[in-house]
Amino acid sequence: MLTRKAHARWEGSLSKGGGQVETGSRALRSSYSFASRFEDGKGTNPEELLGAAHAGCFAMALTYTLEQAGFAPVYVDAIAEVTLAPRKSGEGFSISGSHLICKARVPGLDQAGFLRYAEAAKVDCPISRAIAGVEITLDAALV
Amino acid sequence: MLTRKAHARWEGSLSKGGGQVETGSRALRSSYSFASRFEDGKGTNPEELLGAAHAGCFAMALTYTLEQAGFAPVYVDAIAEVTLAPRKSGEGFSISGSHLICKARVPGLDQAGFLRYAEAAKVDCPISRAIAGVEITLDAALV
Repeated sequence: MLTRKAHARWEGSLSKGGGQVETGSRALRSSYSFASRFEDGKGTNPEELLGAAHAGCFAMALTYTLEQAGFAPVYVDAIAEVTLAPRKSGEGFSISGSHLICKARVPGLDQAGFLRYAEAAKVDCPISRAIAGVEITLDAALV
Repeated sequence: MLTRKAHARWEGSLSKGGGQVETGSRALRSSYSFASRFEDGKGTNPEELLGAAHAGCFAMALTYTLEQAGFAPVYVDAIAEVTLAPRKSGEGFSISGSHLICKARVPGLDQAGFLRYAEAAKVDCPISRAIAGVEITLDAALV
């Protein structure tokens, strides 16, 4: 079992205060704020970090899936678009979706076969299974 | 509705290839690899990025919850420990838990009251609700 860590600290009020967030590897060390989450302010936000986790995991999972099927992908490229929307109940926000846009180069594979593997990786990658409260959609194409 | 983006690209095989992941804000731009995910290699991994999303969201949500209740927190500090474990089915991995460790300074609030607000924020923060496939646990203490 592997345990990975991250740390956040918020100082002061939600609207006028601000935060810092960092990961155990130190690959991420960034400020975040009300403005960087809900407006156009500088800094990161939890939704783009969730997107980075999802895109990163999906790209690895699809590579693995293709290799298991006997293919040798040149690359797998994935964008995750994570949406934050007002809750239907009226108060607060929910993460309503993570939309994956995948392009890959895989010698010897046709489009229909690729779509099947991409769909399988979408369903089965650890981050997809973790974010069970989020609708996950996928556009995938060989290039 | 807000849409946040992240991008990942994996080149080559799972074991010998490698990836890059970045967020729309550019707060994160990092390499990742089989070794940074499953061993002690340099670079990020999806689990610590999920932890950063979770810790960051929880710290904001708890600040909001405390403010709604009439308190003015000085700071809210949160660590997320995300565990990746072999699947019970035998093949692959699952994210089995996100453990939050929270310390906060909140004038005028007692430990029991603080624990109730922290528990509420744990249940209700957008990332907690998104990661419905993960067991979330919490240790919280006023300092």
